[in-house]
Amino acid sequence: MSNWLETSYMARKGVARGKAGKRHELTVEKQGKYHYVYGPYADPVLAIEPGDIVIAETHDAFEGAIKTEQDMPSKTLHMPFVNPQNGPIAVRGAEKGDVLCVHIHSIKPRGPQPVGTTALIPEFGGLVATGNTALLNPPLPERVKKMEVTEAGIKFNSKITLPYEPFIGTLGVSPEIEAVSSLQPDYWGGNMDLPDVAPGAVVYFPVHHKDAYLYLGDCHGTQGDGELCGVAVEMPSTTTVQVDLIKNWQIAWPRLETEKFIMAIGSTRPMEDAARIAYKELIHWMVADYGFDQYEAYFLLTQAGKVRLGNMVDPKYTLGASILKNYLG
Amino acid sequence: MSNWLETSYMARKGVARGKAGKRHELTVEKQGKYHYVYGPYADPVLAIEPGDIVIAETHDAFEGAIKTEQDMPSKTLHMPFVNPQNGPIAVRGAEKGDVLCVHIHSIKPRGPQPVGTTALIPEFGGLVATGNTALLNPPLPERVKKMEVTEAGIKFNSKITLPYEPFIGTLGVSPEIEAVSSLQPDYWGGNMDLPDVAPGAVVYFPVHHKDAYLYLGDCHGTQGDGELCGVAVEMPSTTTVQVDLIKNWQIAWPRLETEKFIMAIGSTRPMEDAARIAYKELIHWMVADYGFDQYEAYFLLTQAGKVRLGNMVDPKYTLGASILKNYLG
Amino acid sequence: MSNWLETSYMARKGVARGKAGKRHELTVEKQGKYHYVYGPYADPVLAIEPGDIVIAETHDAFEGAIKTEQDMPSKTLHMPFVNPQNGPIAVRGAEKGDVLCVHIHSIKPRGPQPVGTTALIPEFGGLVATGNTALLNPPLPERVKKMEVTEAGIKFNSKITLPYEPFIGTLGVSPEIEAVSSLQPDYWGGNMDLPDVAPGAVVYFPVHHKDAYLYLGDCHGTQGDGELCGVAVEMPSTTTVQVDLIKNWQIAWPRLETEKFIMAIGSTRPMEDAARIAYKELIHWMVADYGFDQYEAYFLLTQAGKVRLGNMVDPKYTLGASILKNYLG
Amino acid sequence: MSNWLETSYMARKGVARGKAGKRHELTVEKQGKYHYVYGPYADPVLAIEPGDIVIAETHDAFEGAIKTEQDMPSKTLHMPFVNPQNGPIAVRGAEKGDVLCVHIHSIKPRGPQPVGTTALIPEFGGLVATGNTALLNPPLPERVKKMEVTEAGIKFNSKITLPYEPFIGTLGVSPEIEAVSSLQPDYWGGNMDLPDVAPGAVVYFPVHHKDAYLYLGDCHGTQGDGELCGVAVEMPSTTTVQVDLIKNWQIAWPRLETEKFIMAIGSTRPMEDAARIAYKELIHWMVADYGFDQYEAYFLLTQAGKVRLGNMVDPKYTLGASILKNYLG
Repeated sequence: MSNWLETSYMARKGVARGKAGKRHELTVEKQGKYHYVYGPYADPVLAIEPGDIVIAETHDAFEGAIKTEQDMPSKTLHMPFVNPQNGPIAVRGAEKGDVLCVHIHSIKPRGPQPVGTTALIPEFGGLVATGNTALLNPPLPERVKKMEVTEAGIKFNSKITLPYEPFIGTLGVSPEIEAVSSLQPDYWGGNMDLPDVAPGAVVYFPVHHKDAYLYLGDCHGTQGDGELCGVAVEMPSTTTVQVDLIKNWQIAWPRLETEKFIMAIGSTRPMEDAARIAYKELIHWMVADYGFDQYEAYFLLTQAGKVRLGNMVDPKYTLGASILKNYLG
Repeated sequence: MSNWLETSYMARKGVARGKAGKRHELTVEKQGKYHYVYGPYADPVLAIEPGDIVIAETHDAFEGAIKTEQDMPSKTLHMPFVNPQNGPIAVRGAEKGDVLCVHIHSIKPRGPQPVGTTALIPEFGGLVATGNTALLNPPLPERVKKMEVTEAGIKFNSKITLPYEPFIGTLGVSPEIEAVSSLQPDYWGGNMDLPDVAPGAVVYFPVHHKDAYLYLGDCHGTQGDGELCGVAVEMPSTTTVQVDLIKNWQIAWPRLETEKFIMAIGSTRPMEDAARIAYKELIHWMVADYGFDQYEAYFLLTQAGKVRLGNMVDPKYTLGASILKNYLG
Repeated sequence: MSNWLETSYMARKGVARGKAGKRHELTVEKQGKYHYVYGPYADPVLAIEPGDIVIAETHDAFEGAIKTEQDMPSKTLHMPFVNPQNGPIAVRGAEKGDVLCVHIHSIKPRGPQPVGTTALIPEFGGLVATGNTALLNPPLPERVKKMEVTEAGIKFNSKITLPYEPFIGTLGVSPEIEAVSSLQPDYWGGNMDLPDVAPGAVVYFPVHHKDAYLYLGDCHGTQGDGELCGVAVEMPSTTTVQVDLIKNWQIAWPRLETEKFIMAIGSTRPMEDAARIAYKELIHWMVADYGFDQYEAYFLLTQAGKVRLGNMVDPKYTLGASILKNYLG
Repeated sequence: MSNWLETSYMARKGVARGKAGKRHELTVEKQGKYHYVYGPYADPVLAIEPGDIVIAETHDAFEGAIKTEQDMPSKTLHMPFVNPQNGPIAVRGAEKGDVLCVHIHSIKPRGPQPVGTTALIPEFGGLVATGNTALLNPPLPERVKKMEVTEAGIKFNSKITLPYEPFIGTLGVSPEIEAVSSLQPDYWGGNMDLPDVAPGAVVYFPVHHKDAYLYLGDCHGTQGDGELCGVAVEMPSTTTVQVDLIKNWQIAWPRLETEKFIMAIGSTRPMEDAARIAYKELIHWMVADYGFDQYEAYFLLTQAGKVRLGNMVDPKYTLGASILKNYLG
């Protein structure tokens, strides 16, 4: 546990005090059937205690179906069976009204190169007509790009190598009675596609169902703000997370903490409403835990708040609003 | 079957040819546990054949918990257990790729007067800050209004009596693998709150799950366009619908037919996207079934299309776009 | 003055009491240069007294440049010189804080047949990518449709004749210091494209500039809700309006009155915000002039409010929210 | 001229090759009347040549009317006379179809301390009901905060000092025939409130009117992403900019360049449409000037694009989309 982590919510309030427990391997074989919804109706694939570590073998968002640049999405993908998720992982002791902590240790690409995939998928993406923004314009051509992804970098093309900046695209817990597509982000997490959900960060989710039912998948080798075409550097991964549990912490939306900042995350449409959710939740946090007057927090975020656009392509758009810890006293 | 019905899609293409079959009473007792999600994970409460008629005793959206004008919503309602639904009703022979037809025969208020309820619910409604449009403004006061509702009219207050114009607020089928709150409308129907879903109309839903799994509830004695405060004249009802099945009709969103017009229904945010969905789907319909050139249909709707705003308060907004049948040749 | 007009705001509160005054012909020759902005910087083409009648020869939105179905918009139109307006007409006595009343007497098609034009214009319309909804999809083809328009009907094509239901697409007054494109609707009126702005109605605009500076143009032979492709049945017209002035009536947005209903009109993006503006303004009206408690008005509109979608294609979307007068006591 | 500037568009393509020309002092006295619209109807206060430098004394957005924390905005501000602008500055040789370059040299606070002001203004801000998002909720209280602002830092309160990171909130050129409130950002620039418009950057604006008519004002001592409450650290300033002119460069929206990145800026509602504008314009730029295939640019921005939220409070929301120059070859 690095120094700052000792001061994290996870370490200060978690049942396991941020201390690492048992390690669980969640291999492809152990996972067996992957899941396409975040919900309470599947049986847990694993039951763990607060503090335990899970090493999960995630699939890419296409479950490996796009193997070459000739594999067209419209032929290989069958909705709604996309964005496969590991889990659900039951976390013992978690109840509605608690918060599940997920501290991300590492994300490594997994499988034969080129392991990374991006693509133009019909009626999907930030700059095309979609099922929601339903227009009469002709579609773009389908196109697939495969990329070699290692921890040394991502070969975007012969000229451009991008830094390896991996994160978990889809991460969260089960709603209470709903089971919602893993393509959608919401108050339980899900497909937020927010690059801050990266190694080193601790992410906090409101628990709605007994044992929380943690899901994860959809790791990205890197991604720009907004995930513009809808498909980041998708890759299968070996992802290691440490889980903890904070009892009786009422939060409405996911939150995130790093050494430098705290962030609240909102997901909805239109995008300004996602920004409103994130900033309002961040104000609530500053008032509840850092002694701010509500309007003083509002003023401070006006002058020093930061916004990270996660996705502008999913069924709901995701933004994170953050403030540096050094302004929080 | 009235004359126009003989020319309806239901009568021309339905498995039962629009002919009425067996009658099934779905009383409160028979229903037992009501449902709060549209999904495939509940066991059917009834299995019927195409053509069969169901007489359902629906609860109001509050499951009867608001009995007097002193029963405050924040005390009596427990999210997500609101908007209880009858069903699921298995319709034999229905498969993904088919269309379920629901012909609404009648909707009658049920139970002791005053049977109608509207209310101001905190953080809910079209003219207040909500969980999505998350703002810092103080909330409105809670307020409940009970109204006597009979087929002769609705006593809104001592001066105003509104006509009884009932419709089904929430109606649709199960998604394939999702189970989504009955508060939400979407491509499977759900909480559309569209006043055209009324006695006399036939509503068409794309089937996604074996046996369709029909749900219904949330009947309204009347409602304005948009359901402005979020709560129409909510009432328990005895609602009679006739169900039919059209095999192999691929539609993307709910459709509706009356003697005078055809309508396509879209639900999403922001509202312009709901309008785009509805109008685009209506163009598809005119091209596929009425021989229109796509652009001629676009031109005709520009000059003669009608828009009905269902709700501007639910997790997704609903609009119907329609065209008079006498322009369809 | 028909009976109901005697009870209109115009007749009850207007300086001229709704009585017709002098008639002014505003021919093409007298107008001379047409205008492409609503603003205070142009010199009045006419000065009138409250009660006076203006018979204006309006151009179509293309200033007559699309004469045949071979005249492609991208060749004939030169932004921002589209949607030419008659005016400004100075109304003596009007000051900031007053309301200008425009009672529409008649709208007649003007000029040689086919007098009506609709078109697909690149990057314009409700179901295509635009300058605002900026996407990478290829555009639709350009297409022009000319139609014979008479008061007997509109020959949409060889099979379909649409009823002649004319209205004024663009109507309003000058902002105080801004001069804004006649393509845009806003709180001063402008390009609302709302079919209720039709013969028989009285429209009310908040005055922001001395003498009000009335502009009008862009008459439509008919139009569907939303003006879907962006181009209604555009036509040059002879339009007759009677103008009156209500002193010291503070309204924030345009309002409209017919025999049957009162309506408030909002224009903005996204569309739900236009609906919020319209409904909120209507509540203000009901409270200020009809003795409603604010929440009772909110409840009544929830059950009996009507929404008319004007345009979903202009720089701001326009909706009217209305309530029947017989509910107003 | 620092090294990178020699490679800037301004230096490579500008009429003055980025070389500094004559210096012009635009003091409060010389400016005289400040302006509240961006438009062509005011007389130029200054005429300069490409390359010339302007040292402008700007007012704060309240024209100095809020002098103490007791000066309530609703009493001191009179719409639409807010956000006063210096200018218009005629730039000789500029014509429609050219691009005006503004290289920001420095921004210094001006006047007696406390020189900085932020405030809660009724019906204004990102987390309150407004004229557009028109709701019935009660307003927040008014509140004013005055802050000492020096180049050493901003005394936010007794505990928090914010870094001095000044930028120009409102900057741009005149539309062709419109005159639009200086509160609004659009394709000509205006009230973008984008923190990247800071010393060191070069900003590019499409010219629409002869001599461009440059306006500027509304400097901020610092600001968070989105300018959450609507009022940054507003301050009067002495701002120095160098102006250049690129002939025949057709751009649709403002662009910005620093040593590290290029950025395209979009402003509209809803926010996703502003993001679409910015990203699409950036793709156009990469294709036109850096030899990218359109889809390869789309893919690259998906993986490496950055989004900066300027404002979520003005009549249109502003976002900048950028890409690092080291990916551009």
